[in-house]
Amino acid sequence: MTTATQDIDLAQLIADTEGEIVGLVQDRDPSTHGLYEMVRYHLALDGSGASGGKRMRPLLGLLAYHSITGDHRRALPGAAAVELGHNFSLVHDDIEDGDRERRHRPTLWALRGVPQAINTGDTLFSLSRIALHRLTDLGFSDAKVLRLMRLYDETCLALCEGQYIDISTSETDEMMSVDGYLDMIGRKTAALIAASIEAGALLATDDDEVIARYRAFGWALGLAFQINDDLLGIWGAEQATGKAASDVAHKKKTLPVIYAAEQAGPDDRARLLELYAADDPTSDELAEIIAILERVGAREYTRDEARRYRDEALAELDAAGVVDPAARARLEQIIVGVISA
Amino acid sequence: MTTATQDIDLAQLIADTEGEIVGLVQDRDPSTHGLYEMVRYHLALDGSGASGGKRMRPLLGLLAYHSITGDHRRALPGAAAVELGHNFSLVHDDIEDGDRERRHRPTLWALRGVPQAINTGDTLFSLSRIALHRLTDLGFSDAKVLRLMRLYDETCLALCEGQYIDISTSETDEMMSVDGYLDMIGRKTAALIAASIEAGALLATDDDEVIARYRAFGWALGLAFQINDDLLGIWGAEQATGKAASDVAHKKKTLPVIYAAEQAGPDDRARLLELYAADDPTSDELAEIIAILERVGAREYTRDEARRYRDEALAELDAAGVVDPAARARLEQIIVGVISA
Repeated sequence: MTTATQDIDLAQLIADTEGEIVGLVQDRDPSTHGLYEMVRYHLALDGSGASGGKRMRPLLGLLAYHSITGDHRRALPGAAAVELGHNFSLVHDDIEDGDRERRHRPTLWALRGVPQAINTGDTLFSLSRIALHRLTDLGFSDAKVLRLMRLYDETCLALCEGQYIDISTSETDEMMSVDGYLDMIGRKTAALIAASIEAGALLATDDDEVIARYRAFGWALGLAFQINDDLLGIWGAEQATGKAASDVAHKKKTLPVIYAAEQAGPDDRARLLELYAADDPTSDELAEIIAILERVGAREYTRDEARRYRDEALAELDAAGVVDPAARARLEQIIVGVISA
Repeated sequence: MTTATQDIDLAQLIADTEGEIVGLVQDRDPSTHGLYEMVRYHLALDGSGASGGKRMRPLLGLLAYHSITGDHRRALPGAAAVELGHNFSLVHDDIEDGDRERRHRPTLWALRGVPQAINTGDTLFSLSRIALHRLTDLGFSDAKVLRLMRLYDETCLALCEGQYIDISTSETDEMMSVDGYLDMIGRKTAALIAASIEAGALLATDDDEVIARYRAFGWALGLAFQINDDLLGIWGAEQATGKAASDVAHKKKTLPVIYAAEQAGPDDRARLLELYAADDPTSDELAEIIAILERVGAREYTRDEARRYRDEALAELDAAGVVDPAARARLEQIIVGVISA
């Protein structure tokens, strides 16, 4: 096929996704202008030129669809739904975590208050569902659209379950187990990335074995992505993550910390828990935490785990038998690019 | 038909709805037990014997379905979805409004903090969508289920739009117009009641004219319900509303207040706005507000409007040509019972 030898322009895929979303987030009437303005602000589709993030989830879904069909356009409603759903969770997460800044701009709650931000998140959630109905207009069967909606609904529930575990953990001085942590990020991060890729595959084919392979690929990639993010949150440059301070300063219980608490000797472990329980750590205390993590080997462990899931993702991609080499190359590029460890 | 002469047991409809919901809100695994516990607490399905409210929305949907088909059971997934969706909005509204108590129990955010409450609301939202998929198992066509989902998604968006206008109004000292207020409660209250009744009808029949009549009935009933609630919020007994204090004490800009601000002479109007702009009104000031409302005729106006929409709802019910007299009698009973004015 001719598409197989053509390169895929990722910028075009992002532009098409944003175009699909823009069509959904326009003003519907004057009395709710301010609501859709907040929606567009958070999505960075407000003409400000601000960054709306990498749009990684829709991109992966579109590439999955492209890799089977040779084009991406009919999968755009699914991509829009995933990006809107991801952003609904970000708006609520920012309130729940008390984060005042995202992508170098004030978060919605910091700008407009908690009540409007909660409701704008709910609006994004509603819009993400509405996005999917255009699949019917594009000629997908009702059965296919319903199957996608069921996947999407179960994924949203998994997101909430992961977030529940995350909030619960942040509210206690105890550390969860490494297994518990992997379960949590599975729901909170891998589920949506896997669903996006699975959605792309299920719109493209009726072959359940292929669909399952794509899902497994997405799940491994999602875990790799989060674990790599945990690594960068402590040992990455500030520019790379766009975060104002490291995860340790925010006392986030990410994989390196949880691993260290599980693996450290009694003295290191007691000191680590003590430092994590204290309010407002000094820079000396931050350095001490990082020294413990390094001593226990948490840095290498986390890097190795990110690589392991990355390789698993690549292996699943091979097993899926991707037809289109251009899409395959782009997927591999994203995987390798995202997992920089 | 034999069912036409049999009475309908509303308690059974409520029990069946709660049974349908209970099946959806059980623990899924030990690590998220606490999340589903919060879901069940808010729904008053936690075995505490607390009141979960009147379950008016699912009841209306089931009666609409029954009124065409002579039974209610196949509409239960739709009823569960509506009740879960309604409760998602209550959990978030309680945070947005700062309400610490609902149905004589602490609200979820007052009990477990804002982060868990936001996320539990999102969980209820996700569960409300998952509820609808059982319609497929019950043999409804994919086209029918998708049509219902589209109605449901557009309704959730309308809820968010209404809530946006409500929050915006509460954040300013200005008063909206009566027309603006009716538009707002249309989205915030009437939309979901209309959708519940429309859902019952569209599961029961393919006749679009009948479905539209049921929707119009639900819309008028929704407006009547809210306006009656506004009346009770100022002039009703505390027991009737379950509210700890009147809407005036909370400075809620409900229909009587908005009408008074629009219709009062310059002195009364200026004084009303001044009193509404002040923090913590004294009991003398509260009495003064109510005296202005009475003087302007806001009480009679609000009562008359509630009655007018109630009669419109009854007329639409007649026009819908309800087949089943037992269901018709129960619907009329609810309408007349809810609109006590």
